[in-house]
Amino acid sequence: MFSDIVKNVRVKSPLINVITNFVTVNDCANILLAAGASPCMAYDIREVEDIVSICQGLVINLGSIEDDRAMLLSTKKANEIGIPSVFDPVAAGASRLRNDLCDEFLQNVKFSVIRGNISEIKSLAVGSSTTRGVDASEADEVTEDNLPEIVKMAKTLSEKTGSVIAISGKIDVVADFQKAYVIKNGHPMMAMITGSGCMLTTLIGAYCAANPDKILESAAAAVCMMGICGEYAYQKTIDTDTGTSSFRNYLIDYVSKLDDEMMKERMKVEIY
Amino acid sequence: MFSDIVKNVRVKSPLINVITNFVTVNDCANILLAAGASPCMAYDIREVEDIVSICQGLVINLGSIEDDRAMLLSTKKANEIGIPSVFDPVAAGASRLRNDLCDEFLQNVKFSVIRGNISEIKSLAVGSSTTRGVDASEADEVTEDNLPEIVKMAKTLSEKTGSVIAISGKIDVVADFQKAYVIKNGHPMMAMITGSGCMLTTLIGAYCAANPDKILESAAAAVCMMGICGEYAYQKTIDTDTGTSSFRNYLIDYVSKLDDEMMKERMKVEIY
Amino acid sequence: MFSDIVKNVRVKSPLINVITNFVTVNDCANILLAAGASPCMAYDIREVEDIVSICQGLVINLGSIEDDRAMLLSTKKANEIGIPSVFDPVAAGASRLRNDLCDEFLQNVKFSVIRGNISEIKSLAVGSSTTRGVDASEADEVTEDNLPEIVKMAKTLSEKTGSVIAISGKIDVVADFQKAYVIKNGHPMMAMITGSGCMLTTLIGAYCAANPDKILESAAAAVCMMGICGEYAYQKTIDTDTGTSSFRNYLIDYVSKLDDEMMKERMKVEIY
Repeated sequence: MFSDIVKNVRVKSPLINVITNFVTVNDCANILLAAGASPCMAYDIREVEDIVSICQGLVINLGSIEDDRAMLLSTKKANEIGIPSVFDPVAAGASRLRNDLCDEFLQNVKFSVIRGNISEIKSLAVGSSTTRGVDASEADEVTEDNLPEIVKMAKTLSEKTGSVIAISGKIDVVADFQKAYVIKNGHPMMAMITGSGCMLTTLIGAYCAANPDKILESAAAAVCMMGICGEYAYQKTIDTDTGTSSFRNYLIDYVSKLDDEMMKERMKVEIY
Repeated sequence: MFSDIVKNVRVKSPLINVITNFVTVNDCANILLAAGASPCMAYDIREVEDIVSICQGLVINLGSIEDDRAMLLSTKKANEIGIPSVFDPVAAGASRLRNDLCDEFLQNVKFSVIRGNISEIKSLAVGSSTTRGVDASEADEVTEDNLPEIVKMAKTLSEKTGSVIAISGKIDVVADFQKAYVIKNGHPMMAMITGSGCMLTTLIGAYCAANPDKILESAAAAVCMMGICGEYAYQKTIDTDTGTSSFRNYLIDYVSKLDDEMMKERMKVEIY
Repeated sequence: MFSDIVKNVRVKSPLINVITNFVTVNDCANILLAAGASPCMAYDIREVEDIVSICQGLVINLGSIEDDRAMLLSTKKANEIGIPSVFDPVAAGASRLRNDLCDEFLQNVKFSVIRGNISEIKSLAVGSSTTRGVDASEADEVTEDNLPEIVKMAKTLSEKTGSVIAISGKIDVVADFQKAYVIKNGHPMMAMITGSGCMLTTLIGAYCAANPDKILESAAAAVCMMGICGEYAYQKTIDTDTGTSSFRNYLIDYVSKLDDEMMKERMKVEIY
């Protein structure tokens, strides 16, 4: 069902400006290229408006907070010219600074998609959570039991923000105010490398930029494809008797190799 | 002898804040995850105190000197709340700025462990060395001949600073003011990638955070395990007919795969 | 023909300071080490003059523009002490800021080599281009048809700037004001990872630093060797059924494995 969305990235090769943390920036650039998009990582406040003007999409990752003024200015420009923007509120809830910046961003600009783990999204939705650094707290987990509640929270937050909400975890939820996709692809090894979340947010940016009229479907497709590539990457890690660092490479490798057959065989997507 | 120390990292999964250089930050985050710890890379001065407050360990790497004020403030907070902190005085001796910052840090805060190559540690110990950028000078090398002298220097510096001193090289020395471990694991290919030292410092941070009552043993264990993983990684590099970049991945892979059997087979540790 | 140039890097192990973007900085450090050089990535304006003073080469990559004052100051120091410097005008033409900085640099310092894709070099040469973010525009491509024109542009720009000009693409051109090398090594997968260009610029820095009397030949050799390693890396990617991220690793692997035999078998260099 997501075949055209994936193909459009290769056909259109959208240019995406990504303002992200210095920890996983290389992986984010490489996953864009692997998917068929073209990365730009400009964050100097003196040029971000110029750069965003020639882009088809924008990704803002709070990460190590390189320059929050450049983040805000870029998103204003993206809103102004009408290109999709994706926000990753990394470690929202872990410091007052992060909470304040999230508040400021959500009050002043509109993101097409907000993607985080359940702790981060809870922090945005209800103003409190048990965020533990950059990883979701164990107390915060999407399970079959609390799925209805989580879907409801995502829809409510979507209504409030005007953004599609993507929650990553063992079970992924991608929702706008009326419709939700529940996705069960992925592998636990994805949590044993840094950057799985950042790469996913960036991939959502590419998919949305290539399919600006299908934001919800694009976000769901990116979440699903990332999970599928994680499954293949895990198998390759076992086959080559390697470990987490090789897994990271294989994950990006499979994004570069992804085709219809790989998708069809593995997709676990339900509409909720 | 280090089995429990290693296991405790996986059991407790300590959260470590790492303020490090932008060159090897991704490797540092990934090696923490591979070892079972959880990385946080916050260095914005507006939030470092908040972040350190929720952490079990702190790592400060002088590297490209992203923000020395944030480094100092973080370590003060770590000292205040009593969590282990590890310092990597990268390229100490190579510029006046680095010497001044090292002086300032050592006068104002206390690190649990200081890890460097012999040129960097000499620079701290005797105020002069032949530091050659980030790599140890050839004139500065730990050999069987000068080992007694190096051990003595490490013990003296430990007494002066109150820190465990870890010196990396072909022969590694890890000492407090009265006891020293001499470790002969490792492989020369570790010097042919960037980040071996930074990753080791970060791993020491994880081991100490999970075993705060055993700082000397934790530092020695991390040095030893890194060396063992380097030996396995080299073998895998040969087996796959690859080179230095694949070696880097295999090194992290083996940290994620490390078990008791791998340790026992390879450990070359003496008490000196 | 480039055998000695390549060997000199391993023999002399020059120390290179690289001020580059945070996206590909790790790859740049690793490719220097793979080639036999020693990397330093200092960009703090308080120390760059000290650091450059102990180096044999300098690389300036405009990339994400970490600190343009440090870039300028470093290059002035390199000019003063007479060591080779290489400039990568990343995304020149994509923002007014980048154009202004390029102008300022070229007016105030002299680079031994300037390397860019054809869009970036055109932007420097004729003040306009169709730069599309960090990748060359499709309208700007070196082909057999426009090769004479491109060589002429490179020679003219070399005469104007006093720098050797290296243009990368399917066909590479490396020229001073009177002589040009045309190189047809490489593989299209090099454009599917981030950092191919940055790594090449850095490698040119290492080759020039080890052979300061042969700047043109050193730049041409680096371009050729990078292309050859790309060809081997592609073959390995196919053999291991992997993708773009593994390709990146293999590319650096082959730089670490490069020997005379590998060179001779593959070199496609013409003097034009």
